[in-house]
Amino acid sequence: MAIERFDKYTEVPEVVILRLPLYARVLTKLDEDRETVISSHHLGQLLQMTPAQIRKDLSYFGRFGKQGRGYNIRFLLEELKRILGIDHGWKACLIGAGGLGRAILNYPGFSPEGFEIVSAFDIDESKNGILIGSVRVQSMKDLPIIISEYGIKIGIVAVPSSKAQNVIDHLIKHVITGILNYAPIAPIVPKTVTIRNIDPVLSLQSMTFYMTGHDK
Amino acid sequence: MAIERFDKYTEVPEVVILRLPLYARVLTKLDEDRETVISSHHLGQLLQMTPAQIRKDLSYFGRFGKQGRGYNIRFLLEELKRILGIDHGWKACLIGAGGLGRAILNYPGFSPEGFEIVSAFDIDESKNGILIGSVRVQSMKDLPIIISEYGIKIGIVAVPSSKAQNVIDHLIKHVITGILNYAPIAPIVPKTVTIRNIDPVLSLQSMTFYMTGHDK
Repeated sequence: MAIERFDKYTEVPEVVILRLPLYARVLTKLDEDRETVISSHHLGQLLQMTPAQIRKDLSYFGRFGKQGRGYNIRFLLEELKRILGIDHGWKACLIGAGGLGRAILNYPGFSPEGFEIVSAFDIDESKNGILIGSVRVQSMKDLPIIISEYGIKIGIVAVPSSKAQNVIDHLIKHVITGILNYAPIAPIVPKTVTIRNIDPVLSLQSMTFYMTGHDK
Repeated sequence: MAIERFDKYTEVPEVVILRLPLYARVLTKLDEDRETVISSHHLGQLLQMTPAQIRKDLSYFGRFGKQGRGYNIRFLLEELKRILGIDHGWKACLIGAGGLGRAILNYPGFSPEGFEIVSAFDIDESKNGILIGSVRVQSMKDLPIIISEYGIKIGIVAVPSSKAQNVIDHLIKHVITGILNYAPIAPIVPKTVTIRNIDPVLSLQSMTFYMTGHDK
């Protein structure tokens, strides 16, 4: 039964997966506000999506609501967290302890969501030993043993573009399977690795389309 | 004729618009490497997309290639830049001169792509006058006049979550039409305003789906 459901997930378009964390975020807020049930119509208003799109997105994962009754918020939230793999914590390491790396280490948004940056590395040996927040910068030489000791699965890459692909290859070699890349390039990774590129320029460039008056 | 083409753009799904900057980036690289023509097949390899998807995406904007001949790289690139509104520069201001704001001001990726952060503001008056890179932090009181004087259209928001909606409302009141938001909330904006949220946690949360073995 469980296997049947897991198999089904391989059919889910990536754009749907990209939206699920937004659902989880809105549902978390509703749950905190002690709401118990929500209609696809109301959820659509909160997410600025059509109710039909929401019903379609969720239908990939089974039946969550009864016609006309709305969704049970707590149940839907717990299922989405399980599906996304965020019903438990994840350990991450940071590569690159420059200005951006520091901002990432000091970013308060990760740990409340279960993403813990447990170690930081920099190729510049003169930075070794520096404490940023509660994390000490370590030598790249120690990366393999620390990844394995802590059970780190995620690598956050905040190095210059010219170094990023090499760093990512190195992380993958040491069995990191998720990469959050801040360098403004599109690295190549094998299919067994999932990568997300944080790229403010791409965001700006798709924004200006809507600011140039095509839709006036 | 031009109007006809502009009208058509309103039909373009947002996911297609989100992909266009990636096309532009790959084509820029090819153009720099003095390539002149590329097939949808090869473009697909570079973008990890199917050739059919690429042809479909581009078909929203007219006919760019002849069957079997591939795309003229320079022409396609210039058209995409015009469509995206990145054939000219944009001026931006930053709100929030904390750790993240500093990293943004020092981020080397914006200006080569035509996005220039010309001013920074912080609600904390004690930060007024501080120089970060080449930008001086100014009082929020001066925001309206500076936006209008410089012709700033984009506001980059790097304030704490609790302040972000207020700051965004304030920017919109002073005729900012594009918001790049780094605060981990989903702000509400009118339809006349375009917003992009930089949210590493959302990226991580859609990544872990693929790291939990659903597709094994």
